[in-house]
Amino acid sequence: MATSTKNARKKEVKKETGLGLTYKKDENFGEWYSEVVVNSEMIEYYDISGCYILRPCTMAIWETLQTFFDAEIKKMNVKNVYFPLFVTENVLQKEKDHIEGFAPEVAWVTKSGQSELEVPIAIRPTSETVMYPYFSKWIRGHRDLPLKQNQWCNVVRWEFSNPTPFIRSREFLWQEGHTAFATQAEADQEVLEILELYRRIYEEFLAIPVVKGRKSELEKFAGGYYTTSVEAFIPNTGRGVQGATSHCLGQNFAKMFEINFENEKGEKSMVWQNSWAYSTRTIGVMVMVHGDDKGLVLPPKVAELQVIVIPVPYKDADTDAIFNACSSTVQKLREAGFRADTDLRENYSPGWKYSNWEMKGVPLRIEIGPKDLANNQVRVVRRDNGSKTDIPMSNLVGQVKEVLTSIQECLFNAAKQKRDACIKVVNTWDEFVAALNEKKMILAPWCDEEEVEKDVKARTKGELGAAKSLCTPFDQPRLPEGTLCFASGKPAKKWTYWGRSY
Amino acid sequence: MATSTKNARKKEVKKETGLGLTYKKDENFGEWYSEVVVNSEMIEYYDISGCYILRPCTMAIWETLQTFFDAEIKKMNVKNVYFPLFVTENVLQKEKDHIEGFAPEVAWVTKSGQSELEVPIAIRPTSETVMYPYFSKWIRGHRDLPLKQNQWCNVVRWEFSNPTPFIRSREFLWQEGHTAFATQAEADQEVLEILELYRRIYEEFLAIPVVKGRKSELEKFAGGYYTTSVEAFIPNTGRGVQGATSHCLGQNFAKMFEINFENEKGEKSMVWQNSWAYSTRTIGVMVMVHGDDKGLVLPPKVAELQVIVIPVPYKDADTDAIFNACSSTVQKLREAGFRADTDLRENYSPGWKYSNWEMKGVPLRIEIGPKDLANNQVRVVRRDNGSKTDIPMSNLVGQVKEVLTSIQECLFNAAKQKRDACIKVVNTWDEFVAALNEKKMILAPWCDEEEVEKDVKARTKGELGAAKSLCTPFDQPRLPEGTLCFASGKPAKKWTYWGRSY
Repeated sequence: MATSTKNARKKEVKKETGLGLTYKKDENFGEWYSEVVVNSEMIEYYDISGCYILRPCTMAIWETLQTFFDAEIKKMNVKNVYFPLFVTENVLQKEKDHIEGFAPEVAWVTKSGQSELEVPIAIRPTSETVMYPYFSKWIRGHRDLPLKQNQWCNVVRWEFSNPTPFIRSREFLWQEGHTAFATQAEADQEVLEILELYRRIYEEFLAIPVVKGRKSELEKFAGGYYTTSVEAFIPNTGRGVQGATSHCLGQNFAKMFEINFENEKGEKSMVWQNSWAYSTRTIGVMVMVHGDDKGLVLPPKVAELQVIVIPVPYKDADTDAIFNACSSTVQKLREAGFRADTDLRENYSPGWKYSNWEMKGVPLRIEIGPKDLANNQVRVVRRDNGSKTDIPMSNLVGQVKEVLTSIQECLFNAAKQKRDACIKVVNTWDEFVAALNEKKMILAPWCDEEEVEKDVKARTKGELGAAKSLCTPFDQPRLPEGTLCFASGKPAKKWTYWGRSY
Repeated sequence: MATSTKNARKKEVKKETGLGLTYKKDENFGEWYSEVVVNSEMIEYYDISGCYILRPCTMAIWETLQTFFDAEIKKMNVKNVYFPLFVTENVLQKEKDHIEGFAPEVAWVTKSGQSELEVPIAIRPTSETVMYPYFSKWIRGHRDLPLKQNQWCNVVRWEFSNPTPFIRSREFLWQEGHTAFATQAEADQEVLEILELYRRIYEEFLAIPVVKGRKSELEKFAGGYYTTSVEAFIPNTGRGVQGATSHCLGQNFAKMFEINFENEKGEKSMVWQNSWAYSTRTIGVMVMVHGDDKGLVLPPKVAELQVIVIPVPYKDADTDAIFNACSSTVQKLREAGFRADTDLRENYSPGWKYSNWEMKGVPLRIEIGPKDLANNQVRVVRRDNGSKTDIPMSNLVGQVKEVLTSIQECLFNAAKQKRDACIKVVNTWDEFVAALNEKKMILAPWCDEEEVEKDVKARTKGELGAAKSLCTPFDQPRLPEGTLCFASGKPAKKWTYWGRSY
């Protein structure tokens, strides 16, 4: 923001309205969400349905997550690569279950310029089939293993149901890791190491509690062996949301793509494979969990701007001195490593600016007026709970650091409290239906039979969508002997989370 | 590479052959290039023509360039964004000259799953028309300017002529910057600031000399006002290669997309726009310029691996001690910030390893044998010129640093010398044709008329492709009064580079 000039200051301060949100989070969540992602300038709707423009404050968050994750996987010796956007029909269809899962959503290129292509070419919905023919070529002996590759890219899934910014879009950004090992033990171990990184993205960066667990057979990755995930929950809609997935593919793809190697004994073996991904969906979950009726609420760790400093001049006050104090406050904060800026625009009132930066979710606002100047202090206002404190300039950096740390923690704790309050343990079908109507995240004893899950889906079909299993948490409560499945009445094998989901 | 074991050491060392290149750079450049990008493991050919797999050592270079450029444009206050991959036909066609330039290469999605789309949707060949409808929405007043956005993404141009890895591929990675200013002066200035960053990418990182200049009317960006570029030259083929472009779009797109703003006087004005891009083509130019008959030659600044340490055990020597010395050498180098590794594989001979790492272009090889161990020294072999020196372990870090710096400089100087030797100043058509046959980069006085350039193209048409203007260098030699155009005989207005090009 440019420094002020005396001239500009004399201009009339605009009385703009329409800054706030039309919808309330608790009253009309869907409209609230659409409005908040647009008004906070995270998203712009695009003229092709289901495609969205990711604006700078979105990309800043994405890059923060990317920097963290990319460094972590590099420590694990994963190498970045880039495979083509396109895949031939022939290759795409090699793994039967896999293509069945993705076929309805695949976008096809059939023309270039004015010419028809000889054969239609698919746009990757995910890259297993793009990559694995080459894994087969590159992997010869045990010394070529493990092979660990990752790419940061866009993928396209032409879905028709309920496009929602970040959460369900026809094109999205993600990373997809693809690895091959000599043994299942190594693959199993990596699945969990990656899942832990995904937990950290949600809990440490986005301040969102997640449950680590395993997906049911019905919900696992198409063509995979087993799928683990981190599952978040949106209390307002009572829907679970699959946060990120780490799949063990077993040897299914290896068989179809002939990914073999000569082991140390000179025998021909088949590799064990994993694939794992998180996407820009993470950011949508963050908006849904933390946002409020004033707009976005950003965790300090991912906020492009952590502190906004706003001058609060009064008629007779020394405006220059106030503006200078704002600038020097920003400078001090930046030197201490914070992402800070000041809003010295002359044509907006302080009140308008407060609302504007609240809409954008900036974690901390600092106000500097004549009284603050006189007392050599600043007023600090938290975005998460609105609390106000005066802090002495002499301890600016220390206190800002403390408050930002506290905001990060409080956001997580508040989200966890709300999420936990939604968890309902049930034992019977009636309890299950009641809890579903109350928008709960339902923990129920289950017989773990695929037919029973299909039956649960069929019996809960309705306007809001059917219930399904979210995950079987790794952290299992005790399952007393003789416990019966909530849905089938057969002996229960495990506790599983159920609910509607995105 | 895993640490060795006594057991493994006893295995027979493989006598593998076929490590070298079949083709020589000076004898069959095209085949040499295809072979070197594959054998060095930069590229894998993909089963769709014109699409290539970018392997880890390619992506490492791309990320190094990206880290540099991204930080520089962030200093200029450019913000990263992400716009959709898709664009509707309607919007794509808004700027007439622009679509004429790109239409023949546009890939069209017409189907999703089994359903025909209502209207075909294009995949971006570049994003001017994707972005500018939204620039029109976001820019209202002079306070919204300058607007500076950039995205890192893939684009698709379905070309049919001579696909070449990195240089001409149907999908490639790039950054595209798109900016809007209140005045032409600001736009003009940014065009050159960005061009200077592109020069630095080529000269400082990739050690490739480039000429900064302006493209002719015929060669400028479709729909733009003027185009500047950095032009490299490949002596072996006698072809220029457009290294990166920084366009001033003027107000052409602003007119079609109605990107207007209220200026400080309250009047309606139209913005001035730029767009600028560099792509993975940079990496292909690097391979072409520095590669040799042993394979890739990487400048130390971009090499994923700068130093490879190879043990040279002899029958009676203390192999463990040699291996340990290799590991501790790597550790010292890594601690000093170098990218170093050791190749302790037991089933390959030192000679095989030398060839292998030469193929991959690693700038510096360190050999450690019994004699080195005894003398507390290492042998250092440069990839660029093959020179060998013994350096004392006591000064390892200092000397390695010096040698790597020297390699970076020598690569640039050697490339510049070769490029300069190809520059031929001509004044007449006959001289021009002769120089063209000698594969020169031709500097000729030109009348700057579009019809004359078309005529030059027509008169030089042939198997190798027509000659065209490469750029009019900013650094203009003196043009004596009365100098005539080499092609038209009319009064010359400027010196311009001509030649065949990629």
